[in-house]
Amino acid sequence: MSDSFNLRTLEESLKSVPSQDLKDIKTHIYGRSDDHELSISSSAQRIAESNNFVIKTYGFKAKKEDLRKPRIVRIGAVQTSIAAPTTAPVSVQRDAIFAKVGKIIEAAAADNVNVLCLQELWTLPYVFCTREKYPWCEFAENAKTGAGVTFLKGYAKKFNMVIVCPILERDEDQGDIIWNTAVVISNTGNIIGKHRKNHIPRVGDFNESTYYYEGNTGHPVFETQFGKIAMNICYGRHHPQNWMMFGLNGAEIVFNPSAEIGGSLSDRMWFIEGRNAAVANSYFTVTINRVGTEIFQNEFTSADGKPAHKDMGPFYGSAYLAAPDGTRSPGMPRDRDGLLICEVDLNMCRQERDLHTFRMCQRLPLYAEGLTKACKLDFEPQVIRENENLKRNQRQHTNDHQF
Amino acid sequence: MSDSFNLRTLEESLKSVPSQDLKDIKTHIYGRSDDHELSISSSAQRIAESNNFVIKTYGFKAKKEDLRKPRIVRIGAVQTSIAAPTTAPVSVQRDAIFAKVGKIIEAAAADNVNVLCLQELWTLPYVFCTREKYPWCEFAENAKTGAGVTFLKGYAKKFNMVIVCPILERDEDQGDIIWNTAVVISNTGNIIGKHRKNHIPRVGDFNESTYYYEGNTGHPVFETQFGKIAMNICYGRHHPQNWMMFGLNGAEIVFNPSAEIGGSLSDRMWFIEGRNAAVANSYFTVTINRVGTEIFQNEFTSADGKPAHKDMGPFYGSAYLAAPDGTRSPGMPRDRDGLLICEVDLNMCRQERDLHTFRMCQRLPLYAEGLTKACKLDFEPQVIRENENLKRNQRQHTNDHQF
Repeated sequence: MSDSFNLRTLEESLKSVPSQDLKDIKTHIYGRSDDHELSISSSAQRIAESNNFVIKTYGFKAKKEDLRKPRIVRIGAVQTSIAAPTTAPVSVQRDAIFAKVGKIIEAAAADNVNVLCLQELWTLPYVFCTREKYPWCEFAENAKTGAGVTFLKGYAKKFNMVIVCPILERDEDQGDIIWNTAVVISNTGNIIGKHRKNHIPRVGDFNESTYYYEGNTGHPVFETQFGKIAMNICYGRHHPQNWMMFGLNGAEIVFNPSAEIGGSLSDRMWFIEGRNAAVANSYFTVTINRVGTEIFQNEFTSADGKPAHKDMGPFYGSAYLAAPDGTRSPGMPRDRDGLLICEVDLNMCRQERDLHTFRMCQRLPLYAEGLTKACKLDFEPQVIRENENLKRNQRQHTNDHQF
Repeated sequence: MSDSFNLRTLEESLKSVPSQDLKDIKTHIYGRSDDHELSISSSAQRIAESNNFVIKTYGFKAKKEDLRKPRIVRIGAVQTSIAAPTTAPVSVQRDAIFAKVGKIIEAAAADNVNVLCLQELWTLPYVFCTREKYPWCEFAENAKTGAGVTFLKGYAKKFNMVIVCPILERDEDQGDIIWNTAVVISNTGNIIGKHRKNHIPRVGDFNESTYYYEGNTGHPVFETQFGKIAMNICYGRHHPQNWMMFGLNGAEIVFNPSAEIGGSLSDRMWFIEGRNAAVANSYFTVTINRVGTEIFQNEFTSADGKPAHKDMGPFYGSAYLAAPDGTRSPGMPRDRDGLLICEVDLNMCRQERDLHTFRMCQRLPLYAEGLTKACKLDFEPQVIRENENLKRNQRQHTNDHQF
């Protein structure tokens, strides 16, 4: 799959396409051919230029209703590279990324973002490729009093902005263990709550199960002044049942803070899974990745037959927002720090639910029963065979022959 | 969304794109930039040309294993328009579509297709837009002895081909009621079993709930000589939990016979949902639609504010196959009868399952419990609020103000 390992965005590739073809291709890729960019304030633009990051915007519209006023929300997503070498002291690395992200939040505030989400583990490099515990475990922080959370609480209050803060969590009350967690900070500056990553990868450089377990917080939805939000952290993106439970709990916006490298399965599926989830659950999804290549001091291997090396290759950015009607924003750059701002009307969620009735015809009891059976040790899959003779033949066939 | 109502395929739009850009765009769209067309036999090509349908092919490769031989299967998907006017007698319409499909099956046999699936309700027009019961209910047939099933049994045995036959079923043993059903015919010519559509649409022209209920056959997987197959019929494509249960029951290929019109949500999501399901469940998916515009004698309305009319607009074809590694075949034409032939190695399913461990980290007990709670009448969503004061403020806010 090395051919997909590319730092150009799709939007750059599309620049050469003649206009009629472009319209068709865009319809295919975004679910619509028209563009609705928002204006960017000059102060936000100035902050972006002087701090070398990109701002992209997109607007989604819902139908006008009589009884409900529009529920317009500006959603922000931040993608960054690390800001200091991985060989610098932990405190230096952390201060550097704080400074960088602080500037991006200022730009978000200048453009009136209401709800902002940072990338997964935004305060640290993606260190799990190393399988080393130190100094990396030092980045883990208390979900109420830690440095990253405390840093963002100030911004949340100052800018009247809900901020989702994905951290490496240290649970000091329960054996000092570590979790992959996202904390929701209210626009009042108070913490509303937290969610711990439900699905943990075990592939390639993603040695997360060496550091923490599957989360124990269920599928919480956080009621904020700007809508009901939830976080499906990283690998949960591949699990439709995880998206589904956030929907059943009433989410209107589900963030997917992630860390993903180019040329991978995730790269192929990046723009698929967020859109699929938005439609299946009639809510908005925001899929966020980091950017840049992170080089470590000690070499490591990736279980792919290749020689040891000191980096995972570039993370591909590409943050985007998908709407319940199947349309999506363009993707952010694959190699630059950036802020995506999308304006949505949350009324679209219920409008789509009424139109396509996915929730009504979802048949939850059927699946509650099916999954309950499927996780029993004596589960027998519902398999229908032509007859027992054929069954024996097939077994032999499967073992012995090519077909 | 009228801008997406277009009969050109994406592949036609891509013809104008310069080669480097084309590579990037194809990587985005198909999950790979290389092409693996299979050769088409001259006899199949001859049948296609003289009967005015298109054959497209694509090959997918899996890793070589030591203990398992490759499990190469040729999968076929058929898309057709109706073959006689909807005003012709039922028997004439049926004989005409039988003759057309017979020729396509002959071509499939000439190119060694092992498992073939026809589109949803292949023996009849998509009549539910009319909400009329007669003559349309006459197309319903017994799932063991009906005309469509009987017609295909002969071909299945003659060509050593498993054929999936989606029909309008008449259950004469249980009150003559009607179902939307797919019957699996073994390559021996015997019927292995049937599955009834699980999720029924209630939107626009898709008045299916006027004719039949949600299926009562669970999520069966059919063990055939060419792999374990299942059918997620039409609207179940939008329901990830439906795809998931077929995976839990062991499916390696899941067909999605459908009937979908252009410019719709389904058009926007067509190439998204099949790929998403293939990756999430580590199996192959085959998404199939009919083509052509079907004109009825009596006018009907579509609940979209537009005047009464006599057709739903064109069905957009676009059959394709998606693999568990996130790649997919090109789409079939949007406006022509066609046969898609894909060669796959079923070993890819387990290989992807081992690599990405989606099944292992799926956490079924968590979701069995979550869905069991969610379908209770006294279900309380897992919602976390900042505090009760804020909660009251928010309620007021939601009712009274724009935010």
